[in-house]
This record gives sequence, C-alpha cells and structure tokens, in this order.
Amino acid sequence: MLKQISDIVLEAGEIVKTGFYSNKNVEYKGEVDLVTEYDVKTEEFLKEKLQKLFPDFTIVGEESNLDKKDYPHENVIYIDPIDGTTNFVHGVPFVAVSVGVITETEGKYGVVYNPILNELYSAETGMGAYCNGSQIKVSATSSLINSLIATGFPYKKDNLPYLMQILEQVILNTRGIRRAGAASLDLCYTARGIYDLYYETRLQPWDMAGGLIIVREAGGIVTKLDGRYHDIDCDGLIASNGLVHVEFLNLLNEV
Amino acid sequence: MLKQISDIVLEAGEIVKTGFYSNKNVEYKGEVDLVTEYDVKTEEFLKEKLQKLFPDFTIVGEESNLDKKDYPHENVIYIDPIDGTTNFVHGVPFVAVSVGVITETEGKYGVVYNPILNELYSAETGMGAYCNGSQIKVSATSSLINSLIATGFPYKKDNLPYLMQILEQVILNTRGIRRAGAASLDLCYTARGIYDLYYETRLQPWDMAGGLIIVREAGGIVTKLDGRYHDIDCDGLIASNGLVHVEFLNLLNEV
Repeated sequence: MLKQISDIVLEAGEIVKTGFYSNKNVEYKGEVDLVTEYDVKTEEFLKEKLQKLFPDFTIVGEESNLDKKDYPHENVIYIDPIDGTTNFVHGVPFVAVSVGVITETEGKYGVVYNPILNELYSAETGMGAYCNGSQIKVSATSSLINSLIATGFPYKKDNLPYLMQILEQVILNTRGIRRAGAASLDLCYTARGIYDLYYETRLQPWDMAGGLIIVREAGGIVTKLDGRYHDIDCDGLIASNGLVHVEFLNLLNEV
Repeated sequence: MLKQISDIVLEAGEIVKTGFYSNKNVEYKGEVDLVTEYDVKTEEFLKEKLQKLFPDFTIVGEESNLDKKDYPHENVIYIDPIDGTTNFVHGVPFVAVSVGVITETEGKYGVVYNPILNELYSAETGMGAYCNGSQIKVSATSSLINSLIATGFPYKKDNLPYLMQILEQVILNTRGIRRAGAASLDLCYTARGIYDLYYETRLQPWDMAGGLIIVREAGGIVTKLDGRYHDIDCDGLIASNGLVHVEFLNLLNEV
C-alpha cells in the first residue's frame, strides 16, 4: 500500500515541479498566506487518486475548508498538496507534497516528497522510515549545544513574543537554528538526522500528518510543547531524536 | 578571467561535495563555531590555484587567521572554502565555496558555488551576474509585506536582543523569514530574486566578498544597517532588490 501511495505522491510532485519553474498566479488566503493554481490542481489530483485507493476514507486537505471539529481520527487521509507555498512562489527549493494516511486497522502511512530536490520520504507504522529507498534514522546527538534546531513561524502572530523568547534561548544554547519554511520537510530532516530537533506552533494536521509518521518510524519522538504525547494536535509540537528532548523541554520551562 | 576563477571554484566544490557525503572530523573554533578537515583542504587547494592565477595578490581565507587590520582593500582575494560549515556537518544542502577577487585595475570578480545543488553563481563588475550560465536579476517586489526576507545569526551573541527585536518586526511586516545558514548563498538567492532582501550582522569579509559582487551585478543594492554604502564592512549589511530597501531601513529605525 505504501508503494501505491508513494506512486500517487510522485505523480502529484510532477505537477508541483512544473509549477515551480513556471509563472504563477498568486492569491491570498490571508495578508501573507498564499495559494496558487498549482496548490488547487495538485490537491484535486491527490484527492481523486487517493479516494480511489481508499474509497471509505475522509480526505482532509489544506484547501478543503473542512471545519476543524469535524476532522475524523481514523480512516482519514491528511494531504498538503504544496507544503511551503511561500517557498514555491519565491523559488526556494524546499517544497513538498505531504500525505498522511491514518487507518483503523492497518496502521499508518506517511509520504513526503520534495520534487525539486528529488527526495521521497516514506514510512509505514512498524516498518521503518526511508528516503529514496534507503532507511533513515534520527541523529545520535545527545546535547543541545551540539544540536542543529529547526523551527517555523505561524501566519497568526498572537504568540509571537513567546516564540521570540524561545528562539533567543535556542540561539544561545544550541549549535544554530534553521528556518526553511516547510513543516513536513523539517520533520523529514529530523527523521534523517540532519536536524536534531524541530519545534513549531500552530501547525495544521495536513502540515504534520505525513512527517509525524516518518519521524517516529526513524526512531524520533514527538510531543506537545508540554512534553505530553502528540497526535495531531495543532497547538505545537517538538520532534527530536529523543536524546535532546528533555533538555529542550527544560529550556522551554525557563522561558 | 572569470572563467578561470570559476573553473578553480568548481574543482574546489568537488572536494566539498566528497566531504558532504562522508564522515567528518569536527573541530571547534568556538563553542558552536565548527571547522572540518574539508574546510582546511579546500582552502589550501583554492589558495594554491588562485595564487598561481594572481601571483601578486594577498589571499585572505576563513582559516588564514590574518589580523583584520591587515586586510588590504585592493589586489586581494577573499575565500571561504566552505560557507555554511554547520550545514556541511549536519547535511543541510546549503553550503558553498565563495571567492571574491578585488583587483586594482580590472574590476572585481565574484564566484559562489553550491556543489550539492549544482548552482554556480558568478559575476564580473559591469558584466552582469549569472547562475549556471543564465543571467540573473533581483526581484521586482516593491513592498515589504510581499517580500521574503533572509537573515542569519552571528556566533558572537552580544547583539542578540537587538537582532530579536528586528526579527519580530520582520515577521510582523513581511511575507516571511528564512534562515538557511550560508551568507554567500543568501546573497546569491537575493541576486536571483528568490529573496527580496537579506540582512545580517557580524559577517566576515570572506562570507560576503563573492556574493556582494554578484548581488550588485544582478541589479541589487547593498548598504550598511544605517543605509550607507557597504564595501566589506563587518558590522552588518542589507542586500536587496533596491525597491524595498528604504522601507526596510525605516523598519530598522523603529526598533
């Protein structure tokens, strides 16, 4: 099944890749929240193909406008046709198609594909995580001062002063911070051991669902900002190699 | 001459590329300031080849330990064998070989090469800027709210509270911030119109020299943080498409 989902995502990636190198019509969902015709086209393609593969599943996409309280917890597919739309519009090569399949009986599948850098990440519950066919693992870094950290900033700015306080502590206490602009790829880079820890707030389920499965299957752990287990909660997440997780939670407690 | 410099940089990039995909011995210049055997090896290669091409020039490299007051202003070559060493160590594909040649009589040459993403940026004073042989131009974005901004954070943390204040204003007043971790590539992405503006403080001449020539030849402007002309000053720079420069200076004045 993972192979079939991956093939659909690879095909969707071709639409994204074509768009990346073309002129785009940009529309605004918010003052700085963008959407293009390629987001819409890719989401339509994914919905049609995935619905055929999983006829009884609910598909929740970034452009679906389903009310949050109606998101199901099982037999659901979360899709982000273009994670990193701002990067897509500006030409930063960090964009991805992200799909997370949460089944009631079979487990979970996560597929994240960056069609510009040709990186296909995939995982199935209990079967490990892969990048382009090679198994990937989280890093072995055991202290924050040797850790490279990734984060993002939400469109909604109400918690920005808090995020600035965290960021200042991160810059003071780690090897550095990266902000690449695509949550699903930040999760995959954590899964691959490039980043040692990634945190972000106010993500949507479609930003996270695919990458969460991948980072856990690569040996990582994912919690909320208070350290409790993270499922598909939108307030905030910390994904790490596990080894620097508690030190980071302690750092957050000092903010 | 630009072709000859580019060929040397391309060859140096092969050393960096080999290192990127290998296990590396990491040493520390500071608590989080890293250096590897590949930085040293690449700098030695560049110095030898460039000294043959410019026998009377002073070569200033990241690993040279020349005192800042002794940097010459003409007939000098600034080299950064691996800009983005932290990325290099962790596997983030934003690393570059950067060379800036400042001649007394012929003008200036800038060459920046990302061997992982195969992007060769080059420029000669008065002759335009190129990426992989195609001419590049800064963006046409005319307002900050539609701008994608890049920045970096220095190893030295003394001005961090000021940088946090700037960053908060940038996040509130632009389309977004990116922090990729290699100054020379941030300059080249600005030259290419991917970023609309890039600012950073406490850079070293070898971080900037190549990229400065490229961004100016792509139609961009570069100033200090106070708006005055920027040569190779280390306190801080703003590189932009020109159109959003004054709006950004005004934003800085409000911090």
